[in-house]
Amino acid sequence: MHLQDFSQYRAVSKLTSLARQPHDLHTPGGLTPERIDDFVCSSCGFDLLYGTQRINEDVLTALQELADEAGLVDAFLAMKKGEVINLVEGYASENRQVLHTASRDVFSADPFEPDSTARAKMELAKLRRFLDDLDNGVIVNAQGQSFTTMVQVGIGGSDLGPRALFLALQCYCRQGRSARFIANVDPDDAAEVLRDLDLSRTLFNIVSKSGTTLETLTNEQLVRTALLRGGLEPSRHLIAVTGESSPMDDPARYLASFYMFDYIGGRYSATSMVGLVTLGFALGFEKVMEILAGANNVDVAAEERDIRRNIPLLLALLGIWNHNFLGHATVAVLPYSQALSRFPAHLQQCDMESNGKSVTRQGKAVTWLTGPVVWGEPGTNGQHAFYQLIHQGTEVVPVEFIGFRNSQHGVDLEVAGTTSQQKLMANMLAQSLALAMGKADGNPVRYFPGNRPNSVLIADQLTPRTMGALLAIYEHRIAFQGFCWNINSFDQEGVQLGKVLANRLLEIIAAGAPLAQGKQGGKTVEQALLTKAGMP
Amino acid sequence: MHLQDFSQYRAVSKLTSLARQPHDLHTPGGLTPERIDDFVCSSCGFDLLYGTQRINEDVLTALQELADEAGLVDAFLAMKKGEVINLVEGYASENRQVLHTASRDVFSADPFEPDSTARAKMELAKLRRFLDDLDNGVIVNAQGQSFTTMVQVGIGGSDLGPRALFLALQCYCRQGRSARFIANVDPDDAAEVLRDLDLSRTLFNIVSKSGTTLETLTNEQLVRTALLRGGLEPSRHLIAVTGESSPMDDPARYLASFYMFDYIGGRYSATSMVGLVTLGFALGFEKVMEILAGANNVDVAAEERDIRRNIPLLLALLGIWNHNFLGHATVAVLPYSQALSRFPAHLQQCDMESNGKSVTRQGKAVTWLTGPVVWGEPGTNGQHAFYQLIHQGTEVVPVEFIGFRNSQHGVDLEVAGTTSQQKLMANMLAQSLALAMGKADGNPVRYFPGNRPNSVLIADQLTPRTMGALLAIYEHRIAFQGFCWNINSFDQEGVQLGKVLANRLLEIIAAGAPLAQGKQGGKTVEQALLTKAGMP
Repeated sequence: MHLQDFSQYRAVSKLTSLARQPHDLHTPGGLTPERIDDFVCSSCGFDLLYGTQRINEDVLTALQELADEAGLVDAFLAMKKGEVINLVEGYASENRQVLHTASRDVFSADPFEPDSTARAKMELAKLRRFLDDLDNGVIVNAQGQSFTTMVQVGIGGSDLGPRALFLALQCYCRQGRSARFIANVDPDDAAEVLRDLDLSRTLFNIVSKSGTTLETLTNEQLVRTALLRGGLEPSRHLIAVTGESSPMDDPARYLASFYMFDYIGGRYSATSMVGLVTLGFALGFEKVMEILAGANNVDVAAEERDIRRNIPLLLALLGIWNHNFLGHATVAVLPYSQALSRFPAHLQQCDMESNGKSVTRQGKAVTWLTGPVVWGEPGTNGQHAFYQLIHQGTEVVPVEFIGFRNSQHGVDLEVAGTTSQQKLMANMLAQSLALAMGKADGNPVRYFPGNRPNSVLIADQLTPRTMGALLAIYEHRIAFQGFCWNINSFDQEGVQLGKVLANRLLEIIAAGAPLAQGKQGGKTVEQALLTKAGMP
Repeated sequence: MHLQDFSQYRAVSKLTSLARQPHDLHTPGGLTPERIDDFVCSSCGFDLLYGTQRINEDVLTALQELADEAGLVDAFLAMKKGEVINLVEGYASENRQVLHTASRDVFSADPFEPDSTARAKMELAKLRRFLDDLDNGVIVNAQGQSFTTMVQVGIGGSDLGPRALFLALQCYCRQGRSARFIANVDPDDAAEVLRDLDLSRTLFNIVSKSGTTLETLTNEQLVRTALLRGGLEPSRHLIAVTGESSPMDDPARYLASFYMFDYIGGRYSATSMVGLVTLGFALGFEKVMEILAGANNVDVAAEERDIRRNIPLLLALLGIWNHNFLGHATVAVLPYSQALSRFPAHLQQCDMESNGKSVTRQGKAVTWLTGPVVWGEPGTNGQHAFYQLIHQGTEVVPVEFIGFRNSQHGVDLEVAGTTSQQKLMANMLAQSLALAMGKADGNPVRYFPGNRPNSVLIADQLTPRTMGALLAIYEHRIAFQGFCWNINSFDQEGVQLGKVLANRLLEIIAAGAPLAQGKQGGKTVEQALLTKAGMP
């Protein structure tokens, strides 16, 4: 992989010039039917409508040049083939492969990276046996009853992706099965989840790669205590997803163990055992395989070099146009689907933890913008909330809409000649137009400037397969952007300092002496802060 | 109220100069114990620690001058007294009072605006009778059973605030009572909520001021259909919160009705019947009064003119310093409390719908930044997600932390000498320090630039009273900022265009002719978009 500094690409100079006069969507004739017809990219069951971006043929040509010059698809192929790309040259860093794609490359006789795919297949086989044993009465509680609920205990990547996917697909839950999640070290989080559960019929799936995550171990302790108080034997109720030979890899303490591997980062782990054990319990093994098939489809399609035929690559480049060239600090991901209510939170992690970096792959400070702030809530709810700002505020927010032609439940009702699902989609498309075109008005209060760039990603229905594809589309959008910015999207050194300082504060609290003297004979900053905060 | 353009204030020139060299927190000695001691503001049970902002005495003095010059407290008093401040001079606009404070000014013999407080008291009395009737078996279902669940059907302001407050306080739920929420027009949202409910023991609280909100009426229809299918009479199960004489103000169709008034905007309505009916059902009438008392405390405290003794005013001015003078586009609100998981979403609405404006109160285009993008998720979850970017990304994100010294449930566990609650607070305080101070490091991957401005708002425990106070703190922070920017924070004209276009698309869909000819003999943009989106 031979990535250069973003500022050195010839296409970047071209785009800088083009950005001085971006396409005007607000002007009459700025958004034509032809434009809407021309700017569509269809792949893997999704259509990306991007005529409402501030681009034209020249910009697309320059973005294609940028993709080619930077070798974005080659970098993606290097990733899939298992090159060690999680590193910063010349400095201590993680030095790992990046192989979340291998966890779904299980349908081909000739996988890209055979070793890791073989491991993924072994874990899938274990999962299938485990799920069969639950179905066949081999694994039961002390009273011989089947388990009805799985509670996933994890945080960050061990929580957000699996939770987002479960919520997206919960209408496919097997009869009598459900899933819950505990993440926060806030003891009220666990207390609230445990409150209504029948513990005797609940499995707890403890997920931590290192087996040392503070929040997860603390919550595991809370869970073990609750089980013991209920007269239940924890080792019959706890399973583990962890790294091989981590402190949690201990058959005496867990009913079953599944492995995660250091070449799959937490935020890319939803299609590994981190996500699939709970999803398999709730939805069944077949649905898990459909998720993987959908993701694998996109993994293959993302090798396409023509940016107009590659949805993740096109999304990546449109995002770079909006962020680096048009100067917009954030991007809103707005799914018009209540089932995707937590998908923006997953993307927020996946994107901001990947691309919130300031150092190049060669260890130099970047002189260009890297990842934007990613945020979002489902529509139409957002229309009654923050849309005021995205239409008329002084901050311009590029928007990525996501929608589906059909609902999941199929429970719908025609009111005034259209169904709720049609109303939902009409609202999404109307927002896309309104943001792009704006509206002239003699009353300044009712004037809309338009030129708010956005795109619409639409598929037939939110199914396990579609969900897998959507997940992979975004994973690869993020990776392509990171390659383009010449940063390492796969480490997260920025979370370390807070951990170190938290431990320092906890030592002071545990010592019971927040008012004690610091080294210089006076209070330290940490002591002053604890005192002023009234802790402990 | 005599507000001027933000750019004309003398203090704005001073602050512009001061912003050229903001206080450096990263340098040795940049953050001292004395600084932490000095920059604390305590009021209404909350302490605001703001030594980790990039301010010094000169900046605070200039911010005080700005507050005085703009007459922010006078504007706030005018609002509370019922002056018609929801307007833009010389143009058609809402022309209303802004009196959410009146809905909690129910403890004084001499309320600020007696008429609206009298109306609030009448509604509270109705609510108390209604709740008593539920308790005393006067209001029961057709089988004579009591009701156990209330489902609030509303959207935007009729959903986000009430939902955030309910989640925050659900540990105070009365035995055998619970609340759920349906907002999205997505039919899967209602289907998912209705799936597990015992409809026969459920009340549906339909909330719409106009009685014409598309999403809410559609969901009301879904609910009525579900009830009828279950052999239940809707008028025994539905109650309404709506404007007097709206189409929903109809005793024949609803078991009970409560009124909302046009001087309380949706996003400020959580302490009116919009929030209090469902909260009263779930928590009981006394808890509702505690919420109001907490909010009322802050309503009074926010009259303080010394910015160092007025938490909402100080938060407002620190936010203006970070946004207008240091140039940061967003603000993250990060509660270290799982119970506050939806409070950022409420604030996102309240803030962005209020201050996402580009026109002054005199109808001129602003030439300064108005409201930032507001976003956030609970800690410590976020630490394992997007914190990478806020520590090391190229976008600087000012942070407002919120925490509590004690948990709600009191179910906690000591691991390694500290409780979970102590770990939670230690993490929050550590993040505050880490963001401010950063860390030098020879390895560029492990270098933290610091100087990421933040503040910590802390109270003893999240109770109904604290929740009411916290809500009011943020409502007034938002109002003070809007006054300072000389915009009308109380209308939402920016949501209209999308509604108009959605109706146009729905007409085309209902006519079943997305491919029909437009006026010019060709396709319209709307038709092209529907066709490309594959709708209907």
